[in-house]
Amino acid sequence: MSKINPSIDSVAGFRAAGVHAGLKKEGALDFSLVVSDVDCVAAGVFTRNKVKAAPVLLDMERVASNPESIRAVATNTISANACTGSIGLENARATSDMVADALDISAEQVLVMSTGVIGTHLPMEKIARGVELSRSNLGDDWRAAAAAIMTTDTRPKLGSLRVETDEGSYTLAGMVKGAGMIAPNMATMLSVIVTDAALSTSAANDALRSATQESFNRIVVDGDTSTNDTVLMLANGESGVAPASDQELAAFRAALTDLCRYLAQEVVRDGEGVTKFVTLDVVNAESEAAAERIGQTIGASVLTKSAFYGSDANWGRIVAAAGRAGTAFEPDSTSLWVAAGESLAEHQRGLEIFSGGMPTDYQEDDAAEIMAEPSITFTLDCGMGGGCATIWTCDISHDYISINGDYRS
Amino acid sequence: MSKINPSIDSVAGFRAAGVHAGLKKEGALDFSLVVSDVDCVAAGVFTRNKVKAAPVLLDMERVASNPESIRAVATNTISANACTGSIGLENARATSDMVADALDISAEQVLVMSTGVIGTHLPMEKIARGVELSRSNLGDDWRAAAAAIMTTDTRPKLGSLRVETDEGSYTLAGMVKGAGMIAPNMATMLSVIVTDAALSTSAANDALRSATQESFNRIVVDGDTSTNDTVLMLANGESGVAPASDQELAAFRAALTDLCRYLAQEVVRDGEGVTKFVTLDVVNAESEAAAERIGQTIGASVLTKSAFYGSDANWGRIVAAAGRAGTAFEPDSTSLWVAAGESLAEHQRGLEIFSGGMPTDYQEDDAAEIMAEPSITFTLDCGMGGGCATIWTCDISHDYISINGDYRS
Repeated sequence: MSKINPSIDSVAGFRAAGVHAGLKKEGALDFSLVVSDVDCVAAGVFTRNKVKAAPVLLDMERVASNPESIRAVATNTISANACTGSIGLENARATSDMVADALDISAEQVLVMSTGVIGTHLPMEKIARGVELSRSNLGDDWRAAAAAIMTTDTRPKLGSLRVETDEGSYTLAGMVKGAGMIAPNMATMLSVIVTDAALSTSAANDALRSATQESFNRIVVDGDTSTNDTVLMLANGESGVAPASDQELAAFRAALTDLCRYLAQEVVRDGEGVTKFVTLDVVNAESEAAAERIGQTIGASVLTKSAFYGSDANWGRIVAAAGRAGTAFEPDSTSLWVAAGESLAEHQRGLEIFSGGMPTDYQEDDAAEIMAEPSITFTLDCGMGGGCATIWTCDISHDYISINGDYRS
Repeated sequence: MSKINPSIDSVAGFRAAGVHAGLKKEGALDFSLVVSDVDCVAAGVFTRNKVKAAPVLLDMERVASNPESIRAVATNTISANACTGSIGLENARATSDMVADALDISAEQVLVMSTGVIGTHLPMEKIARGVELSRSNLGDDWRAAAAAIMTTDTRPKLGSLRVETDEGSYTLAGMVKGAGMIAPNMATMLSVIVTDAALSTSAANDALRSATQESFNRIVVDGDTSTNDTVLMLANGESGVAPASDQELAAFRAALTDLCRYLAQEVVRDGEGVTKFVTLDVVNAESEAAAERIGQTIGASVLTKSAFYGSDANWGRIVAAAGRAGTAFEPDSTSLWVAAGESLAEHQRGLEIFSGGMPTDYQEDDAAEIMAEPSITFTLDCGMGGGCATIWTCDISHDYISINGDYRS
């Protein structure tokens, strides 16, 4: 995996800003703008929820109809502009109109994202202030832009990497917000990824879809999926490097996947009330899809997540969750290991606690010692086929309940 | 709905006992036995989890091979005897052998149930003590029998009703344990239902399946399903009444459904850390299955349950959960009401908070007043077809996390 820089210095032809538009209280950054000086090839991955927020509907349409001349992405917090009907769509359009006016481009070149409470209308005067302020603050302060899309996140999440090629180098950079409502298939997660590489529309789409599948779609915070999930990628070509051969495109996809994985894992680490980062390596399932489904079911189990929180090696809950995943599963052919840390090689699976349908004779003290660590990896070997998937998840704590019991008040 | 008696006086030909076998600490009842003086027609509904506990595997086999001469059901706590491989099956068989010896019947006539921690072997000496003690305590103390199957339950849950017919009357009675891990398709829930009516095997099966579908399969505590779920029904015919005509069988099914609903709702009310009882009436969905799926997805949403706990009328989370249920759903045709209390008639849906894809102009104070009640009903009108289903669920509280973070220690 490439080494990701946990910040963004600059990306040729892109500028960003994060400002306080008065949406949040006490001067907190709450409105973000990312702009390219030239037209971008754009790709998007959107929520599969039947209830799609107005900005999602607008962006889906624009990315489809206008994939080669996108110029800007504006994001507001506080209101998700979801479940807001025709008024919501009007407000999303009006936001993009204001951005287009401010930048002297067409509204069709603007994408918008919203995050916050469902069912509240956008406060358009504050949005107007956000557009105006962010336009006049455009520059290289990507940390401010990343901070300005946060909701219950405790820290801005951003990263970048540089890819060297024979023709020169290009940069991939991205920011993300998450925290709660993060599940398979993205949940309330917004991410903007920019690159100064030059890509065709189909290459951009293929790369984003494949990277999302192996990153954002493999994290679970609370199992809920949201109305607003969006991952957007803009490629403006300003580096002068155009990955086009199979090998160059594979390198681009690999770098993008690494960046998305880094951002996805940052979302889990900063999940609401999270005290433990848990890696679930599901191996030898019937298929990759089955492995993913098993990992996601374990990761979404509240009972399992409560045990993680209590540092309890309650492996029975893990095996039981696997058994209800709706895929082929045979406990008698299954083994389970637990180890401290992340991303272990196969020969370091750690302490075997379940094998051949029965608990091993492991010592509870050894398991408890591992479970007390802030990072834990479980390896579930299903003994059925060659399907593997890694899911990143976390515990559920008292703080999660407090945060989500009080969110709107 | 029939009036359910929250206790069991006596059921002709049945005796029960709940004793302290030393499985739990400090004298708590922990082993239960239900016995019929004569052979019973038996029906069972079992977990759909691929990981089935040893007692589930044994009972499935015996109910199928021997459905007309079951005599006893023995239940132990502390160990679920799940994920215990061949040793677990031997121990389940050994338990039934001991019960058969004590009652002078065949082991094939004995069913067994287990609840507790997954992956621990049955402590057979204590089980033997439980069998011996319960045999010598058989009588009409059904409350003790119901107390002796409890795990994190805070109270025994049992009920009965008497059905009058032209040929005389018969009794239906049942006990249940639940508390955590309760989800669509039953979860860690054990229930024994007995009746002195005479039934054919097919009538018993049909009635139990249909009653379970509209009761135990429509409650959600935490969305997890377990390895041990079992609902057993024994019919011994000792009342001399044999429902056989369509009308008589319909009356039996209706009474059984009422009893199962009562027991199922008791499970929700006594769920781990529960502070609110929530009824989700999903109406006019594409089909009954779609309505059920939507209700179950809402009921299992941790985010929605956290809002219930916080008395927050965060209806956006309800609509968003409906949108990810994997069924047809159209927010613009959907309306949502909230009211205090349970089981409202259609004309009493209460406060409309969402309509035609947008929030109504309801007052937040009015919604907050309703949400502060211990019982709340949401009516979600999907505006699509004629499919309706009612799901009973609850909030998720700090106590849930504490209970399940510490369970094994």
